[in-house]
Amino acid sequence: MVKVGIVGGTGYAGVELLRILLQHPQADVVAVTSRGDVGVAVADMFPNLRGRVGLRVQDALAANLKGCDVVFFATPNGVAMQQAPELLDAGVRVIDLAADFRIKDVAEWEKWYGMPHACPDWVEKAVYGLPEVQRSAIREARLIANPGCYPTAVQLGFLPLVEAGVVDVTQLVADAKSGVSGAGRKPETHILFAEAADNFKAYGVGGHRHLPEIRQGLARAASSQVGLTFVPHLTPMIRGIHATLYAPLIKDVDLQGLFESRYANEPFVDVMPAKSHPETRSVRAANLCRMAVHRPQEGSNMVVVLSVIDNLVKGAAGQAVQNMNIMFGLEETAGLCQIPPLP
Amino acid sequence: MVKVGIVGGTGYAGVELLRILLQHPQADVVAVTSRGDVGVAVADMFPNLRGRVGLRVQDALAANLKGCDVVFFATPNGVAMQQAPELLDAGVRVIDLAADFRIKDVAEWEKWYGMPHACPDWVEKAVYGLPEVQRSAIREARLIANPGCYPTAVQLGFLPLVEAGVVDVTQLVADAKSGVSGAGRKPETHILFAEAADNFKAYGVGGHRHLPEIRQGLARAASSQVGLTFVPHLTPMIRGIHATLYAPLIKDVDLQGLFESRYANEPFVDVMPAKSHPETRSVRAANLCRMAVHRPQEGSNMVVVLSVIDNLVKGAAGQAVQNMNIMFGLEETAGLCQIPPLP
Amino acid sequence: MVKVGIVGGTGYAGVELLRILLQHPQADVVAVTSRGDVGVAVADMFPNLRGRVGLRVQDALAANLKGCDVVFFATPNGVAMQQAPELLDAGVRVIDLAADFRIKDVAEWEKWYGMPHACPDWVEKAVYGLPEVQRSAIREARLIANPGCYPTAVQLGFLPLVEAGVVDVTQLVADAKSGVSGAGRKPETHILFAEAADNFKAYGVGGHRHLPEIRQGLARAASSQVGLTFVPHLTPMIRGIHATLYAPLIKDVDLQGLFESRYANEPFVDVMPAKSHPETRSVRAANLCRMAVHRPQEGSNMVVVLSVIDNLVKGAAGQAVQNMNIMFGLEETAGLCQIPPLP
Amino acid sequence: MVKVGIVGGTGYAGVELLRILLQHPQADVVAVTSRGDVGVAVADMFPNLRGRVGLRVQDALAANLKGCDVVFFATPNGVAMQQAPELLDAGVRVIDLAADFRIKDVAEWEKWYGMPHACPDWVEKAVYGLPEVQRSAIREARLIANPGCYPTAVQLGFLPLVEAGVVDVTQLVADAKSGVSGAGRKPETHILFAEAADNFKAYGVGGHRHLPEIRQGLARAASSQVGLTFVPHLTPMIRGIHATLYAPLIKDVDLQGLFESRYANEPFVDVMPAKSHPETRSVRAANLCRMAVHRPQEGSNMVVVLSVIDNLVKGAAGQAVQNMNIMFGLEETAGLCQIPPLP
Repeated sequence: MVKVGIVGGTGYAGVELLRILLQHPQADVVAVTSRGDVGVAVADMFPNLRGRVGLRVQDALAANLKGCDVVFFATPNGVAMQQAPELLDAGVRVIDLAADFRIKDVAEWEKWYGMPHACPDWVEKAVYGLPEVQRSAIREARLIANPGCYPTAVQLGFLPLVEAGVVDVTQLVADAKSGVSGAGRKPETHILFAEAADNFKAYGVGGHRHLPEIRQGLARAASSQVGLTFVPHLTPMIRGIHATLYAPLIKDVDLQGLFESRYANEPFVDVMPAKSHPETRSVRAANLCRMAVHRPQEGSNMVVVLSVIDNLVKGAAGQAVQNMNIMFGLEETAGLCQIPPLP
Repeated sequence: MVKVGIVGGTGYAGVELLRILLQHPQADVVAVTSRGDVGVAVADMFPNLRGRVGLRVQDALAANLKGCDVVFFATPNGVAMQQAPELLDAGVRVIDLAADFRIKDVAEWEKWYGMPHACPDWVEKAVYGLPEVQRSAIREARLIANPGCYPTAVQLGFLPLVEAGVVDVTQLVADAKSGVSGAGRKPETHILFAEAADNFKAYGVGGHRHLPEIRQGLARAASSQVGLTFVPHLTPMIRGIHATLYAPLIKDVDLQGLFESRYANEPFVDVMPAKSHPETRSVRAANLCRMAVHRPQEGSNMVVVLSVIDNLVKGAAGQAVQNMNIMFGLEETAGLCQIPPLP
Repeated sequence: MVKVGIVGGTGYAGVELLRILLQHPQADVVAVTSRGDVGVAVADMFPNLRGRVGLRVQDALAANLKGCDVVFFATPNGVAMQQAPELLDAGVRVIDLAADFRIKDVAEWEKWYGMPHACPDWVEKAVYGLPEVQRSAIREARLIANPGCYPTAVQLGFLPLVEAGVVDVTQLVADAKSGVSGAGRKPETHILFAEAADNFKAYGVGGHRHLPEIRQGLARAASSQVGLTFVPHLTPMIRGIHATLYAPLIKDVDLQGLFESRYANEPFVDVMPAKSHPETRSVRAANLCRMAVHRPQEGSNMVVVLSVIDNLVKGAAGQAVQNMNIMFGLEETAGLCQIPPLP
Repeated sequence: MVKVGIVGGTGYAGVELLRILLQHPQADVVAVTSRGDVGVAVADMFPNLRGRVGLRVQDALAANLKGCDVVFFATPNGVAMQQAPELLDAGVRVIDLAADFRIKDVAEWEKWYGMPHACPDWVEKAVYGLPEVQRSAIREARLIANPGCYPTAVQLGFLPLVEAGVVDVTQLVADAKSGVSGAGRKPETHILFAEAADNFKAYGVGGHRHLPEIRQGLARAASSQVGLTFVPHLTPMIRGIHATLYAPLIKDVDLQGLFESRYANEPFVDVMPAKSHPETRSVRAANLCRMAVHRPQEGSNMVVVLSVIDNLVKGAAGQAVQNMNIMFGLEETAGLCQIPPLP
């Protein structure tokens, strides 16, 4: 059994880690910490966990995190970079669900996140935890930068095209729509039910923090700079991301075959048949990226890719557990195979 | 008072026409017809109209439509082209909310709508009822082809850029999201609450009927063919369309000024300040297109326009009444100035 | 024109007052005040008001509230009792949308609201603003205690039965369901979209502040103490209250006739035909209480009344304007006749 | 492994049976039948099942249902009573998720369901599959009448009170609220998203088919006739039932202790601590009834019980599998222990 600690277990990524890990055949959650709520029974904060977990929230200092095999940080940006190094030095593996270690260019990170980085050396050693790209590095990693939700959906959708060099990477567009849980559990006016329900809006068109993360991943795949326009939107659903991706086709290619072969051996990427339209609910609560690729419409050269994930699972907690499985030599799918409830 | 008849008054465009016209200071609804529901009190079909209208649904043949000044067709595609000519010949003006008269190229229309056209001559005479483009022609029109919901949001958003010749019109992308009322009131599985709630999906990526309509309008504005990729999506809200538009900028220009001056005198187009993000709820139940234009993101040349309407109002019934006002020399805003309820 | 001031114009009751009063033919909103947001344009806080109002939020002290004919308090409980007396002494009429003046028994009020009352003498002089009960007193009132949302729906539903003495008033049950806007616009975790959507729960079963208010009104109608069980619930919709009311029938009576005659002359109460089921959406954004009464089910003596309102309109801002209309001798329906948008 | 057939696998109960049984360690789904959709891959009808099941829909006649150990009927009312007897005679056990065998009084059944019963003898032999009441009979049963969704939530909530004789059973009120999936997957106007979203209404106040089913169960527990008023409501969520139950207390009793001891050994009933308010989302996709009991409010003698289930799981498919587990001597919780996803 892998002994697991969760730092920041009181947000949505935290409760989702708990849901997955409490049902994982080879994981044992031994500590949940948070700055607030110390002493509260975890099962009292999240009514879905009643009767399923006896832990109480601990202070991070009081918890025996160094006795864990792996610690997940489900904390706001800027926390893991403060606390992870001590754990790493003690031999604990760390998976950060926040953004602290995602951007290799530290100056770029500091610009977008508005704070100095506390441990640039660990940025260099961190492995970006997108298994479909980095599986072998993840296997050896001590520190995982778990990808953001939008970056997971967008990169997985673009990768077959970019890696194959069949699209103009200077003219990429990612139009992404997220359910409201993506904004977290901290109360703010714009995510109140009465504000966000029966409403649709874009946000962050001037520049969203996931833009440099996506660009970095796609540039790596393209071996060149990419020109990407990324527009996120808030849609009135609880979970789910739908990324609609546009790329000008520059080579004639069997698009369907390209996608199917790229992901043929991936347990958590499902390429649908030609002409399909994936639905976010089809991956609800599941660690799955489902996608479809469409040939350009009449009179256009624009490939359209539709890519859906559950932002809290393949876009956060599920992918983190997938990384844990790889790091510890477990079956990669362990604990991650539940069928999505529908409707 | 303008004497009004409504053919097909039992769908969402119909009830919305009724809501608007029953409160219009210069309109008098004298007949509502439908193939089904004959004899039913209109107020019994739509609980919001209880106590506000005494009409009963009539059969189109029994109703004295020829005694009307104007007849609105809120019918499925293919109905108005059968019934409108007789009314037009009798001197009644006609506003068709369906697609029968929108596409000037009859062969193109027949390809997308899958039926032979019943009166190609009237297609030629029909005026496309987008007042922001065709106001003077509408004033003289006998037959109005009221624009589709997506085409209204998309064309109004692109027009300033295309008319000014500042973008590459061969690489346009319109990523549009619609509330579920856009699919109509006829029961179908995919628009059931339990199917469409908490879910997001694209549809019609292979080709949607609004694509040729939008292309026609933009080509007219550009005086050239345009290359447009149009992807509609279904989002779990009742009303509203959000169009996110992408166009490669080819000339340096004051985008904000361009949009503000284009729509300076338009009563129903609101250009928001720079860096804004319009919300669909801000135009709920209102005859308004609200938009914002964003300069390209860092490292890109792609202009982003965000354009929102209520699909049932500026995207259907409200625009139809706006056309009626223009046709009959009324104040263009008559009956169309209610403040949207929020939240 | 009635000169109107609004204190606390930045919550949901405030924006709804603005929506209604800005369209009212005889009202002129001259000041909007709030503790926060001073200097912000009202139209920038509420996107539905863009282009419809030029006012900025003022500090209550800076605004010339004494120059108003009437001031609405759309503030948290405990504010109006501090600030209203000075305005009242200056001859301004006051309509409090909060609870400060609703409960005649000051000790009872202090128990439920957890603070000492600042002006018990004004509690005595205040008129409870339920026009269907207090119309003549409202006409003469200087201070109106505008009823709560649940109390409006519940009292209007029970009144015909209680006034007629046909039910056992010691065994009343009011099972009420509210949309989330009823909880206000202040950000709290339990009303986030991701918490409140796709969920249903009761709250306050141990005792809700609207219980004594409802009991007071029903006891007045019954001329005796009443035994009432009141259970509010949170339902995933934006606006609307549905009260399902249960009362044991003790006299044989024509229930339908009883309800119809009780409300025959009420412009804002709609008694539906027998066997009807009112829907909250049928009164959306409208100042209307729609209801239906059902005979006891087989084997039971329990009358069931279904009563719906929009919590922000007939349950708050609309009723407040109705009271203003009565106080100032205007047409009672002025500014309050818009047809609800549906769907 | 238990060999399982599912008749009527294309509705919501059907897909939920599939979700549960495909993950059940001791069940093997060998046939899925339906009148329509014959030949369609099950995974093509329900996108959550892609990659998880290879079966195609078969015609009931073509499928080898007699080779199954158990056949679930997830069909409309009136189907199982036609087809089950032949299977039962062949030694197959049958679990009917519809209402055909729930009401012991056949005349009463025929009145409510509007058709003659095809096999009254099997009604007598059928066991009502509420394990918390009938566990030992279920163990021996050949034919299970799986309870309705409302009846499950309502009976489990009332049973401790009724069995203990502490309430007046002539004055029971069950105010129940259901998510829209309870209305099934057959397209009808009133359950369209644009009709049911942002709306709340009661229905069937004149008499709902679940009323006699609940009455039968409570009368059995009370050993006397009961007077019950049952009002179902439609609430804009996908899954979940919240029953709010009212009963006049006639004996002083430790309510909390009564409920806790009644369900102490029940794996799928969770009695929450005093003063709790269960949320429907806390049992989403889980085979669980969660409840809380509240002492009467001040000035009243009315006990309030709050009881929540997922209508498709403990209210349908999950309870059916629980019954299967009991019938076949499996661990009662086998395949039924997934933690609900939240949010």
